Amino acid sequence: MDDSIAQLPAPGVVGPPEIGGEGAGGRRWVLSFREGAGRSRELLGGKGAGLAEMTTIGLPVPPGFTITTDASREYQQTGLLPTDLLREVQSAMTELEVSTGRRFGDTANPLLVSVRSGASVSMPGMMDTILNLGINEDVARGIAARTGLPRFALDTYRRFVEMFGKVAMGVETRLFDEVSAGLRRRAGLATDAELPLDLMPELISAYRGAIEETAGRAVPDDPHTQLEMAISGVFGSWNGRRAIDYRSYHGISHDLGTAVNVVSMVFGNTDNDSATGVLFTRNPATGERSLYGEYLVNAQGEDVVAGTTTPTDLGGLADEMPSVYAGLENAAARLEGHYGDAQDIEFTVEQRRLYILQTRSAKRSPRAAVKMAVDMANEGLITRDEALLRIDPEQLYQLMLPVIDPTARDRAIADGGLLSTGVGASQGAATGRAVFSADDAVEAKERGYDAMLVRPEASPEDVHGILAAVGIITSRGGATSHAAVVARGLGKPCVTGAESLHVDAEAGLLRYNGHTVQNGDLLTINGGTGEIFLGALETIKPRAADNPEIKTLLGWADAARRLGVWANADSAADAVTALEMGAEGIGLCRTEHMFLEPSRLKLMRELILAAHTSDGSEDEEADSAFESALQSVEEVQTADFEAILRTMGTRPVVIRLLDPPLHEFLPDYAELAAEVAELERQGGTSPELEGKRRTLEAVSDLREVNPMLGMRGSRLGIMHPSIYEMQVRAIVRGAARVSVDGTTPDPEIMLPLIADVGEMQLLRGRLEKVIEEMGEQLGGPAVYKIGTMIELPRAALTADKIADFADFFSFGTNDLTQTTYGFSRDDAEGKFLMRYVEEGIIPEDPFKVLDREGVGRLIRTGYGLGKGRKPGLQIGVCGEHGGDPSSIEFFHDVGLDYVSCSPYRVPIARLAAAQAAVRSAAKS
Amino acid sequence: MDDSIAQLPAPGVVGPPEIGGEGAGGRRWVLSFREGAGRSRELLGGKGAGLAEMTTIGLPVPPGFTITTDASREYQQTGLLPTDLLREVQSAMTELEVSTGRRFGDTANPLLVSVRSGASVSMPGMMDTILNLGINEDVARGIAARTGLPRFALDTYRRFVEMFGKVAMGVETRLFDEVSAGLRRRAGLATDAELPLDLMPELISAYRGAIEETAGRAVPDDPHTQLEMAISGVFGSWNGRRAIDYRSYHGISHDLGTAVNVVSMVFGNTDNDSATGVLFTRNPATGERSLYGEYLVNAQGEDVVAGTTTPTDLGGLADEMPSVYAGLENAAARLEGHYGDAQDIEFTVEQRRLYILQTRSAKRSPRAAVKMAVDMANEGLITRDEALLRIDPEQLYQLMLPVIDPTARDRAIADGGLLSTGVGASQGAATGRAVFSADDAVEAKERGYDAMLVRPEASPEDVHGILAAVGIITSRGGATSHAAVVARGLGKPCVTGAESLHVDAEAGLLRYNGHTVQNGDLLTINGGTGEIFLGALETIKPRAADNPEIKTLLGWADAARRLGVWANADSAADAVTALEMGAEGIGLCRTEHMFLEPSRLKLMRELILAAHTSDGSEDEEADSAFESALQSVEEVQTADFEAILRTMGTRPVVIRLLDPPLHEFLPDYAELAAEVAELERQGGTSPELEGKRRTLEAVSDLREVNPMLGMRGSRLGIMHPSIYEMQVRAIVRGAARVSVDGTTPDPEIMLPLIADVGEMQLLRGRLEKVIEEMGEQLGGPAVYKIGTMIELPRAALTADKIADFADFFSFGTNDLTQTTYGFSRDDAEGKFLMRYVEEGIIPEDPFKVLDREGVGRLIRTGYGLGKGRKPGLQIGVCGEHGGDPSSIEFFHDVGLDYVSCSPYRVPIARLAAAQAAVRSAAKS
Repeated sequence: MDDSIAQLPAPGVVGPPEIGGEGAGGRRWVLSFREGAGRSRELLGGKGAGLAEMTTIGLPVPPGFTITTDASREYQQTGLLPTDLLREVQSAMTELEVSTGRRFGDTANPLLVSVRSGASVSMPGMMDTILNLGINEDVARGIAARTGLPRFALDTYRRFVEMFGKVAMGVETRLFDEVSAGLRRRAGLATDAELPLDLMPELISAYRGAIEETAGRAVPDDPHTQLEMAISGVFGSWNGRRAIDYRSYHGISHDLGTAVNVVSMVFGNTDNDSATGVLFTRNPATGERSLYGEYLVNAQGEDVVAGTTTPTDLGGLADEMPSVYAGLENAAARLEGHYGDAQDIEFTVEQRRLYILQTRSAKRSPRAAVKMAVDMANEGLITRDEALLRIDPEQLYQLMLPVIDPTARDRAIADGGLLSTGVGASQGAATGRAVFSADDAVEAKERGYDAMLVRPEASPEDVHGILAAVGIITSRGGATSHAAVVARGLGKPCVTGAESLHVDAEAGLLRYNGHTVQNGDLLTINGGTGEIFLGALETIKPRAADNPEIKTLLGWADAARRLGVWANADSAADAVTALEMGAEGIGLCRTEHMFLEPSRLKLMRELILAAHTSDGSEDEEADSAFESALQSVEEVQTADFEAILRTMGTRPVVIRLLDPPLHEFLPDYAELAAEVAELERQGGTSPELEGKRRTLEAVSDLREVNPMLGMRGSRLGIMHPSIYEMQVRAIVRGAARVSVDGTTPDPEIMLPLIADVGEMQLLRGRLEKVIEEMGEQLGGPAVYKIGTMIELPRAALTADKIADFADFFSFGTNDLTQTTYGFSRDDAEGKFLMRYVEEGIIPEDPFKVLDREGVGRLIRTGYGLGKGRKPGLQIGVCGEHGGDPSSIEFFHDVGLDYVSCSPYRVPIARLAAAQAAVRSAAKS
Repeated sequence: MDDSIAQLPAPGVVGPPEIGGEGAGGRRWVLSFREGAGRSRELLGGKGAGLAEMTTIGLPVPPGFTITTDASREYQQTGLLPTDLLREVQSAMTELEVSTGRRFGDTANPLLVSVRSGASVSMPGMMDTILNLGINEDVARGIAARTGLPRFALDTYRRFVEMFGKVAMGVETRLFDEVSAGLRRRAGLATDAELPLDLMPELISAYRGAIEETAGRAVPDDPHTQLEMAISGVFGSWNGRRAIDYRSYHGISHDLGTAVNVVSMVFGNTDNDSATGVLFTRNPATGERSLYGEYLVNAQGEDVVAGTTTPTDLGGLADEMPSVYAGLENAAARLEGHYGDAQDIEFTVEQRRLYILQTRSAKRSPRAAVKMAVDMANEGLITRDEALLRIDPEQLYQLMLPVIDPTARDRAIADGGLLSTGVGASQGAATGRAVFSADDAVEAKERGYDAMLVRPEASPEDVHGILAAVGIITSRGGATSHAAVVARGLGKPCVTGAESLHVDAEAGLLRYNGHTVQNGDLLTINGGTGEIFLGALETIKPRAADNPEIKTLLGWADAARRLGVWANADSAADAVTALEMGAEGIGLCRTEHMFLEPSRLKLMRELILAAHTSDGSEDEEADSAFESALQSVEEVQTADFEAILRTMGTRPVVIRLLDPPLHEFLPDYAELAAEVAELERQGGTSPELEGKRRTLEAVSDLREVNPMLGMRGSRLGIMHPSIYEMQVRAIVRGAARVSVDGTTPDPEIMLPLIADVGEMQLLRGRLEKVIEEMGEQLGGPAVYKIGTMIELPRAALTADKIADFADFFSFGTNDLTQTTYGFSRDDAEGKFLMRYVEEGIIPEDPFKVLDREGVGRLIRTGYGLGKGRKPGLQIGVCGEHGGDPSSIEFFHDVGLDYVSCSPYRVPIARLAAAQAAVRSAAKS
């Protein structure tokens, strides 16, 4: 090998240094915004990359530089700022002084900077910002003297002390609130805003004192020390609880680290010709193509997102500062063109001059996401394939969720149940029990009930509560407050700025109009309209299928996907929904679900008791009871099958024969035993006691140690032939009734829990005989498909043999996951699986996202053996994973013919299947 | 292709016909004994092949021919004798007339033949025989006239009628017994033997009448019709219940079919210079090299094997007919030389002339099998490898079984508990409850208790009872009776010929000396000495290791095998046995088994209740109760581990940390709930009630729907860290105590039920820390092996990743079989698995014989991934399959390092491992 070549620097990675030197080993820790364009988000973080791109395309970005994520990772590993970093920062600061014409620490013309974190993945509000760094008492005095705005100077200083205390010195927000409240109390004031100028130095001094007391160290006056501590503080906040929670929830690696952006300050709080705001290039709630945002006059950036003050709609700015508004319109157009996506921009106006401080891909509501993607594809900004990839399929699910029934709403309003109307910050309806802290929301979830998180304002410290709650209400903040942004990202209903509500989080209650909502009271919200109701309101299903953009998008998805999308449906009503959602067939009709309704459960119990009594006996009476119960059940089943088949027309309907252990239909053993004991104690022999005794005996005989691995599925079919035979007769007869009207239905008979080809062969033989007999009797078609679930490891491993007797396979990934892991869902999820996922012992809940290494390997094996033996074998999946986008991608890659999922997840599956196809085409 | 070549007959298969013609398509249905040598047992059946071989090597075999199994299979398929078969039989009969000088159906000098079934696999007594075929009233008269022996002639006729009635016409044995008993009653006689000559025609006539009445058809007089019906009858008997039962039990294919041998009759019942007998070339009980057998003077073959009369020991023949005895000695030597194995011969002497009627490999007791194999290898008759392959490893197991404790025996005899002494027909001791019919034995087994089958004599119709019983007693018959032969084959203790017992099977009791044994009374037998005792006698373990032939054989096995053989042992006592049996290590020490003893169970309950109470609470009292319980358990465990490690010296001891769900140590929920309810009803609050309530709460919380797939194994270890940490401390401390004495023990820590590498990594980290801390504390070695069971499909499928954190693997084939099949052993075996195997839905119980297609495939995958990632990884198996010969062969083929099984199965495993090595060397 030619050493001279090997030692050349990689092109574009290490160029000649413009600012700063080179770190150890030739690595650069610092890049100015002018150098950063085209560098990766992984290196610069999202914020830094955005600033560099904007600088390059000529948008008005204040000069600054980015400390790379490399430095963060180094810090996470060693706990120290890397060697040479401070030297590079020093050079970059000197450069900044040159370009701004100001000096860091100078009292006459000071350079102040913001220090802002920015990870490569957008994590709104998760990481921390320090504004106004470089200020101290002397500098503040200098600013006041130079600008003639002493309040501005002191406000700027106060903000710095507070933020620095929090981020760089680990002091809690609560402390500042207490100090400020104490001062206001002493001065007889209500809010911060009213603080007279002469009290501001006292407030700052009190803040500084409180910080020193808590942290054991004073806020440094030296700007360079401030900068060094700020950088360490930002790096340290990567491992703060809220950041870790957010990453864990979203499956973001904890190893990415964050970049740090050091930006020369511009001041939205200079005067009333100054402002700060945020802007979405399209409406993030509806997706409409018009600027959308809010601003605050005479304020700094954090005021808007913190939600402590309710800002003004962006429209106002067009009137107040038309040239600034025009500048924003221009910036929005250029950014959308550059990124090919809607952007979320932070801007500041300093004395009518516009600065763009940040751009990022805009968070959006599910509805907006769909509209934006479809519009942008139609505008030619992106391709259709790109549009398909833009939508997180889970977002679509939100659009399928129920909304509040208008009638119920009208009634509630008439009854005075409308508590308040705030800002509709994230669409969807939710009902939950009021909780007033994030921890209570988490606890409620763990205890199994839905929590509605109610907060005065949601801070980043509440993220774990937002994750746990079904909906969020805040009395302050707007559509771009933390709560709103996070909730929209999660697709959770959220109402912000419901200012008529007085939330007392400490006391755990909420007051309005002299009424009180206590902890645990039911509340319902509409995150679209911002309405908050007392109690649980009825909800109805949205007709998402009528939304034109969703229709268009799903049309594109259907054209792009290869996988079929079927639905799991157990009734004609389910089947109707499935068709509306676009299902092409029914992949799983669970016959046992037909017996959950009380009158039918009674019928099923009679059948089981009769079967148990007649089993092996030569008791004619018992036999005839069994026959009669069997016939009743057969009639009910026939009607059920007829209705489903009629609904589905000629589409395939895969009907699974009885699967669960029989005792699932019977009462609980311990309870029944207690009842019998009680009746016995009362003496005598009543028919009631006799009946319960008989039932108890049956329940006792049918009890199993591990019912999941016991007498169920095809084992039941083999040991009690009459049940499956009855079901098959009902299927054939039901189909025949539909055929009479000229439609030929396509029922397919599926055997559950096959472990060995011997079971398959035996049952197939028996059932074919029944079908043939029925065919002769009805004069109808005598050929039906008979297939099997592949839901046990052994079935997958011997799929070639099973294929000899099967017309189709359907992977039952729920049971397959249970047996492959040896996890019983009933026991595992509550007892250890949640903890496993939380603690990262296993990366994901395998019942939600298909485990590719284990279960997936069995699926590949089963698929390969099955198709290898019988190329025409139809192979699908009907476990819950059939509706999970990541799992669907895997099923596409394996080559399955279709996925089957719950009706409301059909659109998700259609989109996910399309995305899998687009991605796999891109790869090949 | 050259048609002229294709049409040539295959050499050796279809030669020029010597007798008979050619069947359809050129197939020959009939082969004479002179033609059969070298033909396969599959074609001729065992009996036919033996007759042909003996004819060829010049032994005195009566002339005859064999109808091939091809004809039988044709018959089974079509229900008809094949075309041309009767023509071929006719030719063969003509040939037979020529070679015997007699004529079929001739009254002056008649040819009589026997028609005997003979399958390719030895099935003693399973199939049927008809002797004396060709006789009728006229012929009988002719024989009487020619021989001057009217009793012989009539006895011959009577036997024919009876056997023909049974085999060819389907009449039950019972009918003949009734007819004969009725006649005897009328004549005032006690047994058949006393029947006067003048009554014999009446008996025959009564038999014929009864047959005609039952079967609706008379016994034909025409010899050719007799022959045709007899052949059909033998073919039909292939599907009789007893034959099907035997084949099912032994895993013999039902498709093999049986040959039919037609042999010219010689008559052991001619006079007192005639006899019939059976001979073993070596003693079938001890293996000694000396002729062993029995004979009856003036009798036909069936009299000996039927066990209706007790025959004379073969020694008597040496005195009575020395030349015949010399002929037998000569035949025995030639046959052993020819077959290289001990033979079981049937012979008949007709007026001092010896005929050999059958030879087959001799059934033998386990002890005899070992001695014969070792002796024959030492004699140079076979190689050592052949000797190893001669022993069914399961037979060795019999030699490990308990025998009656001599002290208990002496006491029983002193107390008058010795009921009777019969013939020790099959070695071993057994205790069971008396049952008096085969059906009762089956029912007893199904109801879960051991049955001792007591019969006057065991007929082939009792085979299903012999299979179900733990031991067999008959009051009649000798060491070669059906019962004895079948029991020896099965390795079941059996006593025959206990003539002092009067068995009344109908009444379900047994009388002796005026006492009575009722259905259900306990009996103990010694199948070696023939002793029968009342009650259950204590047994002791035999010192099989001291038997010189077993020692020699196992020595050869150890030299031949590649697989290591370890034992599963949970206590020092088990470990001692394991070493005696030749175990090279302990592959599975189940720590939970240490807590089954009541006082320890109490300790474990305390620990669990304390853990449950302290769990998550901040109750200091509960915490200290938990700590104290934990410490008590740790002390007990430390002593346990020390004792086992001390016993095993430097050999590896794989200790599995706690595996079962905690509630297995607690009382049953329903029972406890009832107790609490009862105490509550009695009113007041006692400490007892309080304690039970607390326990009930814990039991309720710990209850699981599917405990097998729930909170157990490593999941328990992860969620309750203190338990595994305590166990590891106990291991390290126990080992340290042993090390003090200069021996370095080799404890290896095994984690159960790992599903994902994350669990392995977490636990390994935690436990390594404990080991390190203990090492520092004790100043002992701080490095231990930590490995895992591979007992879930996912562990096998991701074994490469798991190997990164494991020093060894041990396949837990019990749980792996449960999860691969989705079969819970607790539920499946009783509820459906037995039926599955009986009905042939699956070929074998996968919990007994490893399923190669499914579970085996996972084992191959896991082995390949594990060794691929870490070539030095030690991989063994510790499920029950580790002691099953067929499974051991598979483990050898896969390449595992060792198998671990229960101590008494260690010798079996050593032999099976050697056989696997020998077979695999022969293959390659």
